[in-house]
Amino acid sequence: MSSEAKRRIGLIQMRMSDDPNANLEKAIRRLREAAERGAEVICLPELFQTRYFCQTEDAARFDLAEAVPGPTTEHLEAVAAELDVVVIASLFEQRARGLFHNTAAVIDCGAGYIGKYRKMHIPDDPLYYEKFYFTPGDLGFRAWNTSWGNFGVLICWDQWYPEAARLTALQGADILFYPTAIGWHPGEKAELGEVQREAWITTQRAHAIANGCYVVSVNRLGFEPTDPADSEAESAGRGIEFWGSSFVAAPDGSIVVQAPTDKEGVLVVEVELGAIDTARTGWPFLRDRRVDAYEGLTERFLDQE
Amino acid sequence: MSSEAKRRIGLIQMRMSDDPNANLEKAIRRLREAAERGAEVICLPELFQTRYFCQTEDAARFDLAEAVPGPTTEHLEAVAAELDVVVIASLFEQRARGLFHNTAAVIDCGAGYIGKYRKMHIPDDPLYYEKFYFTPGDLGFRAWNTSWGNFGVLICWDQWYPEAARLTALQGADILFYPTAIGWHPGEKAELGEVQREAWITTQRAHAIANGCYVVSVNRLGFEPTDPADSEAESAGRGIEFWGSSFVAAPDGSIVVQAPTDKEGVLVVEVELGAIDTARTGWPFLRDRRVDAYEGLTERFLDQE
Repeated sequence: MSSEAKRRIGLIQMRMSDDPNANLEKAIRRLREAAERGAEVICLPELFQTRYFCQTEDAARFDLAEAVPGPTTEHLEAVAAELDVVVIASLFEQRARGLFHNTAAVIDCGAGYIGKYRKMHIPDDPLYYEKFYFTPGDLGFRAWNTSWGNFGVLICWDQWYPEAARLTALQGADILFYPTAIGWHPGEKAELGEVQREAWITTQRAHAIANGCYVVSVNRLGFEPTDPADSEAESAGRGIEFWGSSFVAAPDGSIVVQAPTDKEGVLVVEVELGAIDTARTGWPFLRDRRVDAYEGLTERFLDQE
Repeated sequence: MSSEAKRRIGLIQMRMSDDPNANLEKAIRRLREAAERGAEVICLPELFQTRYFCQTEDAARFDLAEAVPGPTTEHLEAVAAELDVVVIASLFEQRARGLFHNTAAVIDCGAGYIGKYRKMHIPDDPLYYEKFYFTPGDLGFRAWNTSWGNFGVLICWDQWYPEAARLTALQGADILFYPTAIGWHPGEKAELGEVQREAWITTQRAHAIANGCYVVSVNRLGFEPTDPADSEAESAGRGIEFWGSSFVAAPDGSIVVQAPTDKEGVLVVEVELGAIDTARTGWPFLRDRRVDAYEGLTERFLDQE
């Protein structure tokens, strides 16, 4: 029983500019700030080095990709070692010529780069044209024993799949991290915005409850134009307004801390790993899973005719 | 596309007395009330004919069980036919001498009794000693094409398992019904009560979101003593306070209607089946499930050593 263990988690909710170097420098400044405030494990938003380029399908954007491990993970290895933290860094991975993934690297203060998760569920809907850019992950769902505990990493669209949370938690992850890039279509926000944001929070709180673990979701923030050259994009609503709202959910589903929809910021919060034991023994869901009856989950649909 | 179809759902949130005949009569009065108000599919709470006898392990209570189909389903078949409704009735099933299940019967206005679901996930925690009474179900997860549409039925503890909701929705269920008996330990209510009730609502809203379907949860209500002969049980908090809060969640996770924690009642609400299409095409989660990577879901735990 690890009932006495505490972990201090850092969430970096940030806006991105057009300049990848500036974004990386800003991310590192925020990592320093989080570490100074005691964070041990720090998560950056999805694809934090760039604007969310998936708003259009443009082969020129593949130039933004890099090897993982590669230059950015090397850079972050030095930062993680200096700050004595684990960093979860979402990167645009080039695996081979013409083969790309949406990947999160796990960088440990002690061991350096210890592995990567390649986003398994790839979205594709208006302004989120990720299927053009990213091959679905082929490393499966993963958790890592780091210097600061056992964590799993999933990415954005994975949030909507209870299967992904379950398969990661079943590997012993005490905390599920979700680097994220989700926002409103400005034209829909008035009518649907709050229901959409609430659904996004609800589905992740439910992963915490079903698995009796912590969930940490870290989103980007602010308006990004579909066309970077469109100077009237924001007033005309041609783009995505990323809704921030980064949060930590406890194993009982309660929200431990949440960032606003409209401000950048570094959240640092202490979580008690003993709450995982309390949740899982109070309402012992893992005990009663009907693993003898779940084989249909590997089917697309259970057609009745 | 069934975008024009509407269904009127009835939820009967009720208290139970010590008298099974009185409970059945009351349930039938409420079925009539729901039908008069236009309900087409009506769900009763879990084990609506009796007090929640699982608060103790007492072999004498097996006398409460009956065959399914059997006398109660026959009785309800006549009611369903007369009222032109589908009834979801949770029953204590005796399958053989010494073999019992927690079972829900589906009774169709046209076809009569059309099948049963045997609760797959059986809880066992203080005052909910169900593993003493009920053998885990062996019919798997099920959905039925009824006179009023395609529905799935799950029962109470199943609520905490995303696998159960998924496997039922994948059979084409537009609505998942959960007859329920969940409440507070009076001694815990002040400290934990609201977090527990909120977790229960959240996990089911998440099933609606993940599967893009409706979820209908129907709970019993009020204090029931652990020992029926204990006249001071309620003032001393020796029992369970069932928290009502029956609700309907829409495919976007929003709450369509919800009953209070402290009043019996019949809720009748119209739902638009077109909202299922809207949800599933707007955020097309079913499209992107990684069925090639879910085989670990049939494992108890994915041990790392």
